[in-house]
Amino acid sequence: MTTEASLYIPTLADMLTARTRIDPYIHRTPVLTSRMLNELTGAELFFKCENLQKAGAFKARGASNAVFGLSDEQAARGVATHSSGNHGSCLSYAAGRRGIPCTVVMPRTAPQAKKDAVAGYGARVVECEPSTSSREAVFAEVVAESGAEFVHPYNDHRVIAGQATCSAELIEQVEGLDAVVAPIGGGGMVSGTCLTLSNLAPGIRIYAAEPEQADDAFRSFKAGRIIADDAPDTVADGLKVPLKELTWHFVRDHVTDIHTVSEEEIVAAMKLIWKRLKIVMEASSAVTLAAILKNPSVFAGKRVGLIVTGGNVDLDRLPWN
Amino acid sequence: MTTEASLYIPTLADMLTARTRIDPYIHRTPVLTSRMLNELTGAELFFKCENLQKAGAFKARGASNAVFGLSDEQAARGVATHSSGNHGSCLSYAAGRRGIPCTVVMPRTAPQAKKDAVAGYGARVVECEPSTSSREAVFAEVVAESGAEFVHPYNDHRVIAGQATCSAELIEQVEGLDAVVAPIGGGGMVSGTCLTLSNLAPGIRIYAAEPEQADDAFRSFKAGRIIADDAPDTVADGLKVPLKELTWHFVRDHVTDIHTVSEEEIVAAMKLIWKRLKIVMEASSAVTLAAILKNPSVFAGKRVGLIVTGGNVDLDRLPWN
Repeated sequence: MTTEASLYIPTLADMLTARTRIDPYIHRTPVLTSRMLNELTGAELFFKCENLQKAGAFKARGASNAVFGLSDEQAARGVATHSSGNHGSCLSYAAGRRGIPCTVVMPRTAPQAKKDAVAGYGARVVECEPSTSSREAVFAEVVAESGAEFVHPYNDHRVIAGQATCSAELIEQVEGLDAVVAPIGGGGMVSGTCLTLSNLAPGIRIYAAEPEQADDAFRSFKAGRIIADDAPDTVADGLKVPLKELTWHFVRDHVTDIHTVSEEEIVAAMKLIWKRLKIVMEASSAVTLAAILKNPSVFAGKRVGLIVTGGNVDLDRLPWN
Repeated sequence: MTTEASLYIPTLADMLTARTRIDPYIHRTPVLTSRMLNELTGAELFFKCENLQKAGAFKARGASNAVFGLSDEQAARGVATHSSGNHGSCLSYAAGRRGIPCTVVMPRTAPQAKKDAVAGYGARVVECEPSTSSREAVFAEVVAESGAEFVHPYNDHRVIAGQATCSAELIEQVEGLDAVVAPIGGGGMVSGTCLTLSNLAPGIRIYAAEPEQADDAFRSFKAGRIIADDAPDTVADGLKVPLKELTWHFVRDHVTDIHTVSEEEIVAAMKLIWKRLKIVMEASSAVTLAAILKNPSVFAGKRVGLIVTGGNVDLDRLPWN
């Protein structure tokens, strides 16, 4: 196992510390089942509902671990990130719980509903132009001026240790799992799953699921090195971001396989979950069931955990309408 | 307390028997909370998620109690009901679990999706014309020919004892409740709630919530006798049915008050719950939050349980689209 010397790989001890640290700020989310979906797939499916998590996404775990792990001195200067998705609102949520400043740099073009969600938990939203160079420049300015601690959405050991608490709960809630399937974007949830399961339940296979139209993780996995997408576009908008060093480490070493699914398969699986499980979850969370439906022989007869990663959906723009 | 001599009022013992009997066939549904909804209402709200129940509705409880309480001889002849809503699919579900015949008489004009749901759990669907006289004639024929046991959607002591198991779970899951609010249509859920709470937690106040456009329970409660609606029409389509003798008994004796809400208030509360709790639930289930939002002084500072009665929604026809 080779890694950059500077790369701190979070450990089981970090996950256990995170678990105690974030316990007061997160929900132990329920696991739901559906006899009909079991019959449809020939597998026993267990949906770990992080859409019911605080701030509506598993990212409340990693953000809380980062925020509550800061020293008082660091905390006083606040936290900052750039995100147009769930990490921004989850970091805002966690900072709000600790009562410290939070700044989220978001593209001016991000939907107002997303800006409102971030601001709704108390963070300051700073807009940038919708380009990497503008984002980096604006973000550097925010950090320089405030001394805020940068909490990356996924390429951060504190965040991964926080996400890792999810599968620690799952294996307590469901005995005898054969496999866990998680969506992969930047790889934070998959990395956390790898961290926990490789230590506590190494017999459980870990699969990742990804949109065909944002398949950088799939191509990286097959190539054996990080390959980034060029402007991916998918209804699963939480999964557009690329792997980074830290998450690549976990994916490379612990993931059994990565399955890709089409846009139509994602939307069909999303609607099926809404209809059968009666939960509101994001298109990004539907890639797991879509992958199982597409590869029945891999999962038939198995007890399979699926991570439902988030529930922040624009109810006025559902992808099947 | 006066009741018709022929009316058997289910007791706490019946609820306890039901609880053991139906345990293998129903989910212990989770209770969800939302800090944002607490802030909005000034109350502490606990949502008992029967939308996540088997077959997507609390009615799986009462139907299972009726079906699994039958003698083998009765059971062999099967069960029958008339319903265009959740009771039909829940009775079908319970009969399927016992492996006995089930017939559901439905108006020819009922949505195909509802007929499919009933048939999907194994019942035979028999169509009638959309009139009371046709329904009664067709239903009488079904019973005469099969000898099937009639399980009324709510005016049935076995059904009420089954629904009563819901609040028995709720008071184990949430300590120190001050009030429970449930939607009222025919009154099965409210009656079950009254049965359990009046015996096990008489300090908890019981409120019912009802659409203004189907306010027969409200008017009955104020008048002190059953008053039926004339062709009610509401987005909360599970709540159009009138109280009957048995449910009126419980409402009259144990309900603190009934609040009515407008169509707009129902849809707004429904969307708010979908957005904040990330659950798919019916318009009928939203009357509770709508009533709390409309009457903040009644609930402020209180710990309040809300029964989310069902999640069977046509995702292609959401009321805010």
